[in-house]
Amino acid sequence: MTIEAAIAEISSVLGDRLTRSKSVLETHGQSETHFAPAPPDAVVFPRSTDEVSQIMRICTRHACPVIPWGTGTSLEGHSLAIRGGVTVDFSLMNQVLAVNEADMDVTIQPGLTREELNRQLRATGLFFPVDPGANASLGGMAGTRASGTTAVRYGTMRDNVMALEVVLADGRVIRTGSRARKSSAGYDLTGLFVGSEGTLGLITELTLKLHGQPEVISSGICDFASIADAVNTVIATIQMGIPLARIEFVDAATAAAFNAYAGTQMPLKPHLLVEFHGSAAGVADQAGQFSEIVADFDGSDFQWSDQTEDRRALWALRHNAYYAILQSRKGATALVTDVCVPISRLAQAVEETRADIAASFLDGPILGHVGDGNFHVVLMVKPGDEAELAEARALASRMAERSLALGGTITGEHGIGMGKLDHMQAEHGEAWAIMGDLKQCLDPGNILNPGKMVRLN
Amino acid sequence: MTIEAAIAEISSVLGDRLTRSKSVLETHGQSETHFAPAPPDAVVFPRSTDEVSQIMRICTRHACPVIPWGTGTSLEGHSLAIRGGVTVDFSLMNQVLAVNEADMDVTIQPGLTREELNRQLRATGLFFPVDPGANASLGGMAGTRASGTTAVRYGTMRDNVMALEVVLADGRVIRTGSRARKSSAGYDLTGLFVGSEGTLGLITELTLKLHGQPEVISSGICDFASIADAVNTVIATIQMGIPLARIEFVDAATAAAFNAYAGTQMPLKPHLLVEFHGSAAGVADQAGQFSEIVADFDGSDFQWSDQTEDRRALWALRHNAYYAILQSRKGATALVTDVCVPISRLAQAVEETRADIAASFLDGPILGHVGDGNFHVVLMVKPGDEAELAEARALASRMAERSLALGGTITGEHGIGMGKLDHMQAEHGEAWAIMGDLKQCLDPGNILNPGKMVRLN
Repeated sequence: MTIEAAIAEISSVLGDRLTRSKSVLETHGQSETHFAPAPPDAVVFPRSTDEVSQIMRICTRHACPVIPWGTGTSLEGHSLAIRGGVTVDFSLMNQVLAVNEADMDVTIQPGLTREELNRQLRATGLFFPVDPGANASLGGMAGTRASGTTAVRYGTMRDNVMALEVVLADGRVIRTGSRARKSSAGYDLTGLFVGSEGTLGLITELTLKLHGQPEVISSGICDFASIADAVNTVIATIQMGIPLARIEFVDAATAAAFNAYAGTQMPLKPHLLVEFHGSAAGVADQAGQFSEIVADFDGSDFQWSDQTEDRRALWALRHNAYYAILQSRKGATALVTDVCVPISRLAQAVEETRADIAASFLDGPILGHVGDGNFHVVLMVKPGDEAELAEARALASRMAERSLALGGTITGEHGIGMGKLDHMQAEHGEAWAIMGDLKQCLDPGNILNPGKMVRLN
Repeated sequence: MTIEAAIAEISSVLGDRLTRSKSVLETHGQSETHFAPAPPDAVVFPRSTDEVSQIMRICTRHACPVIPWGTGTSLEGHSLAIRGGVTVDFSLMNQVLAVNEADMDVTIQPGLTREELNRQLRATGLFFPVDPGANASLGGMAGTRASGTTAVRYGTMRDNVMALEVVLADGRVIRTGSRARKSSAGYDLTGLFVGSEGTLGLITELTLKLHGQPEVISSGICDFASIADAVNTVIATIQMGIPLARIEFVDAATAAAFNAYAGTQMPLKPHLLVEFHGSAAGVADQAGQFSEIVADFDGSDFQWSDQTEDRRALWALRHNAYYAILQSRKGATALVTDVCVPISRLAQAVEETRADIAASFLDGPILGHVGDGNFHVVLMVKPGDEAELAEARALASRMAERSLALGGTITGEHGIGMGKLDHMQAEHGEAWAIMGDLKQCLDPGNILNPGKMVRLN
């Protein structure tokens, strides 16, 4: 078998940093969501770009699939080894290589997690803001073009990756971008690899933009009588240009899950959780303006605090939302899906989704990064129950179709992986074929995370 | 001849919107800078995407070069028809197709200029901020990944183009991106076409992000004893996170040119021209903080004003800088070049460039969008004087090499065109070969703006 031949050769390079232990294969064959496990034939733990390059050369020679692995927290089955092969786990390549405080950038290895990066940056007065919730690896976050709660202020990985080192399918190592803040020098290869989900190359080094730790951070929460009131508050805030750092929506079902999980006493209504970053005067000004908008939409008194402990509690709640929701149905797994629409269509998109779920036999709390027009549904299903999974898939499909009809996208931040392939044609039409052409150009043997992102003839 | 056959066929489609008039060919064979004229064999003026698609199909069949044309204001000879062929002038495709005020986006045709767009947006309270100086077409600005004075606050075309319609070499029409504010749905084709200088496809429609017109705009100017003081003021301001809308550097030579051109009485010293956008309180706060930094670096009293006429006068001066500088040497043309470095290296880069020019026999005022680390030199040369042009080229080459040595890029915003091709290998190494592979993938006949951006075997 060609895969076996590749594994034997890689083993001779990496020694005991190639493993075929059942438990390791199983761990790397799972995802956080409902997908059926698909373990690789081996997992390798490279320590350097050169080792990654050697792995790729061997795998190209033997037509062996290669799947990149960060922390395994992606939600659409991105790292499942659906055609077997070798999973490249980047956990040993997790170093900060250079912090450039004056330029507010950092160069790191892909296995470093965002929380560890921020821990190491603490004394510099700088931080890396992109926050998808999970403590994901930064290589994985680049690969999936992750975003999360702070994208409304600081942008997504698309906006915050300045440069990459990438190992191509044939083992060549290239560098894209630079530490300059902008460039017109050629095609934007950095942008091409960010979000390519490991299908065009393996990221072995990243240079990221950093941001100044805000002088003052102020967080708050308020509730509304209806989804429309909450969402219209968001729209008005964005249109007024108030620079929110975070603005998160949770619906009544999510509030109920929070109450059960964390002992909070949130009213069973739609809520907004917000955060402002800036100078003391700036934050007070922004919070004041926001309070007025909340009042215009008959929201509850906006309660805000700049105390660290209050803030931590609020965002811990939000970050644990997935687990809180899962706990609301014992033994459940979930189909987690997201879409992103132009903000003027957000209320309609959320309300129609809410109605669609209400008419189904599944529960699915709605929450999201509404400042971007992005929201999520966590559709709880019993593991192995095909009828429930089919119902969840149908709901998710209609959500994607609705998003496209409203001028949006089938996924704002979760990516394609296995879960959204069937909607790529509807979103992109002929442009999806072009993506396939680019894939074939850069990976003619189709060994890089095969079966994801594109369909090849 | 194959070009002649293509022209005959296109003529049968476009009628008198294909012209071979000598004066039109000459106009489209020139650039704003020092490059030798290179007229096309015909200029066509399509009215629709379908016509552009027909043109491309004909040109593919006959292997006829196709060069896109907006307003001809690019600085590196992007639109010169160096292999003849057909120049596609987009001036008749200049309509605003849809303004989405609630979503703060607009869909337009590529021939629309940025000033005309902003004129049409005036009543909406929104504006399109990217401002390269020239009243360029928005299609051309996307093609060259333009930026300019406001990029420090609002980003470049990379950040402000949400979606495109593109006609490919074979005539296929694709759509990239969407009106959603973010997406993880597939490869970032929008980002691939932005900055591709017409070498991968012709842009026939753009959706752009808009921004709220600032409540208050405040502009000001101050001067410094040294380049280092001025640049270090910029670095400190950026590092403190003060949200400048514009921060422009002009050196003493540029100040002298302004005085001669516009009758100003600027001291013959390095200056910073700045602008703040925001609420009245926010702008006052920012200007106050900035004044303190200026004082720290012994700058002159920072004079600021929120009067429209003062502001207009200040930025008219900056926008006319190229013409003011050209007037300082009678009959001169110029080699205009730009680089962009990490901001910590900006003072060094500018000072070494200043010294290098001082040691040459040419004059070259320095000015730039220093908040991004981006600066320009206007090297004045006598048209047709090969020794002067060679000296200017050598200075520009050393500037590009210096930028790379400092971790920067060979061009922050002017692009590659004809002028920077020789430095692409040094900046990108093997990644430049990958750009060539992508070009061959999307334009196998090499008919799209051939001879620019990449070198094909």
